Amino acid sequence: SKSYNITLLPGDGIGPEVISVAKNALQLVASLEGFEVAFEEMPMGGAALDAVGVPLPDETLKSAKQSDATLLGAIGGYKWDNNAKHLKPETGLLQLRKGLQVFANLRPATVLPQLVDASTLKKEVAEGVDLMVVRELTGGIYFGKPRGFSTDENGEEIGFNTEVYATYEIDRIARIAFETARKRRGKLCSVDKANVLEASMLWRKRVTALASEYPDVELSHMYVDNAAMQLVRNPKQFDTIVTNNIFGDILSDEASMITGSIGMLPSASLGASGPGLFEPIHGSAPDIAGQDKANPLATMLSAAMLLKYGLGEEKAARRIEAAVLDSLNRGFRTGDIHSAGHKLVGCKEMGEEVLKSI
Amino acid sequence: SKSYNITLLPGDGIGPEVISVAKNALQLVASLEGFEVAFEEMPMGGAALDAVGVPLPDETLKSAKQSDATLLGAIGGYKWDNNAKHLKPETGLLQLRKGLQVFANLRPATVLPQLVDASTLKKEVAEGVDLMVVRELTGGIYFGKPRGFSTDENGEEIGFNTEVYATYEIDRIARIAFETARKRRGKLCSVDKANVLEASMLWRKRVTALASEYPDVELSHMYVDNAAMQLVRNPKQFDTIVTNNIFGDILSDEASMITGSIGMLPSASLGASGPGLFEPIHGSAPDIAGQDKANPLATMLSAAMLLKYGLGEEKAARRIEAAVLDSLNRGFRTGDIHSAGHKLVGCKEMGEEVLKSI
Ligand SMILES: CC(C)[C@H](C(=O)O)[C@@H](O)C(=O)O
Ligand SMILES: CC(C)[C@H](C(=O)O)[C@@H](O)C(=O)O
Repeated sequence: SKSYNITLLPGDGIGPEVISVAKNALQLVASLEGFEVAFEEMPMGGAALDAVGVPLPDETLKSAKQSDATLLGAIGGYKWDNNAKHLKPETGLLQLRKGLQVFANLRPATVLPQLVDASTLKKEVAEGVDLMVVRELTGGIYFGKPRGFSTDENGEEIGFNTEVYATYEIDRIARIAFETARKRRGKLCSVDKANVLEASMLWRKRVTALASEYPDVELSHMYVDNAAMQLVRNPKQFDTIVTNNIFGDILSDEASMITGSIGMLPSASLGASGPGLFEPIHGSAPDIAGQDKANPLATMLSAAMLLKYGLGEEKAARRIEAAVLDSLNRGFRTGDIHSAGHKLVGCKEMGEEVLKSI
Repeated sequence: SKSYNITLLPGDGIGPEVISVAKNALQLVASLEGFEVAFEEMPMGGAALDAVGVPLPDETLKSAKQSDATLLGAIGGYKWDNNAKHLKPETGLLQLRKGLQVFANLRPATVLPQLVDASTLKKEVAEGVDLMVVRELTGGIYFGKPRGFSTDENGEEIGFNTEVYATYEIDRIARIAFETARKRRGKLCSVDKANVLEASMLWRKRVTALASEYPDVELSHMYVDNAAMQLVRNPKQFDTIVTNNIFGDILSDEASMITGSIGMLPSASLGASGPGLFEPIHGSAPDIAGQDKANPLATMLSAAMLLKYGLGEEKAARRIEAAVLDSLNRGFRTGDIHSAGHKLVGCKEMGEEVLKSI
């Protein structure tokens, strides 16, 4: 029978708790669908800093590269917040993305009927929201050179970064976005700041040029400031959004908060070939770490994305997705999504309920 | 008696309509408070492109520089959207900001009790929101060099921009922000991406260093992605936000949409000395231009900011602010903020009602 190697990166804070629950779910659906999964657990982020002094040990990157897919919990925490840049947990995450060359970050933001009240938006604005942000993940101002500190012509200290995109980088993320939109409702909105930035002008030019290859997809363009407004005004207008690394960072977080259920949202980071990286979009939540309070569903759904996009095991993926919905329908809620009339459970119990539903 | 020169830049779309209404209000409060105002109306944006072929004619910049303050309506429209960069209305606006050296953009976002229903956020989340975004306006990636198009080492076309801040630029905007927070509720949140960008690391270092001079202001730091979320989750947590040019562009638009009443929101752009630039934050709304449908209140309130911050005529400013509230209390609403039980009026009539209230 088929067998897959999965690298698990529990990371920091609530990371280990949610990863342990998702691991059980992966194991169960594998046995039900008749394939094998072998896990390798590796240190990453603050945990790796404490253990071996770097946020992404070589062995961890090697394991992720050699695996069929990687599932990450969460990284970071107050403890390492004032570290020098190369010793920040975040730097390890950026190295991992770059090392795996996962340039396409897919971040769905969906308002489930069961959880529509969790949104701070009015019910009629929030209900039915179902959008996907396709964020460029290995280019732009996150990685552009030159960068650093220097002095200007007056001897003043300056800090600087370079926002830069090459044609091939725009083309490959645009293709993923057009294909994603095609499998969804056929609408793609490209977000940029082409009225000011040259990097955005090239972005818009290339996205527009590629559109002729996807005549079934309806392409529109929006400035990033307007997009930040429209997500609040009427998020239902969006199907698929494609944007650069930094705008994607901001807009995908805004979109996820619009659903009101950050503890529910998964993400997938994919390359041209090679293994993908899958992680919940929430952070490491150090304040509730180790207290069995975390919501494991975002990691469960990230495991489902891993099965679908990473391994091509769609049926197994659907088993997890259906089980998550079933557990919600049976009334189970962790603290972050709890409301009157529902059963408040911890991370472990929520995990067990999903296993029962599977 | 005192006399002031005010440059009026009606601009495009609904710009001329809202400027004409605000001009009347300025004239009236001036006569009531015993000072004189002389107006010079100059072309700008698309109107200037059509008339003389550039978005900011030299005479317009000269008039603005020699005046005591400038009031701008709005610029831009579909007609000029595909122009080359130096022939875009937006480029004229950036040249005007740079020419006047107005590095501090103050953008209040307030939810008026009369208009709380206009927000897409739940009433309990929206009501009482009263925040100020202090955006750096003449630096960062908007103006940073090098910028442009080139080819990379593989001969691929690239588009690039430079995000750069010097110590003096950060210090001067931070001081304005600390002073603004001091006059408000004493809370300042500095927004950056210091976990990734060197330009943000210098920003955070300088803002932190200056905090000791403002012991009465409580300073916090937030990453821009988190700020985009927190504005949706709980906007009331914010008093004053200070951030760079591009993050400020995005977050101030998001904050303004949270109020639900973009047609109500003014802005002020100030320099170290010299005249300021005042404008509503809404755009030129070409789809309703010339139809007497625009909401003139944002421009009225921008005129009030002009009186207060630009001319030091606080009493005259308060007259306009009070009259705007009074007109709302008397039930008058333009289409964008209209709801059942209120009197729907056009731009002109709304202007007349505010004059009556004054
Ligand atoms: C932790 C940080 C470096 C990261 C990013 O900015 O990409 C995070 O915000 C995210 O969106 O995954
Ligand atoms: C029109 C555009 C250049 C401008 C900006 O990006 O600054 C606008 O969005 C604003 O916020 O005033």
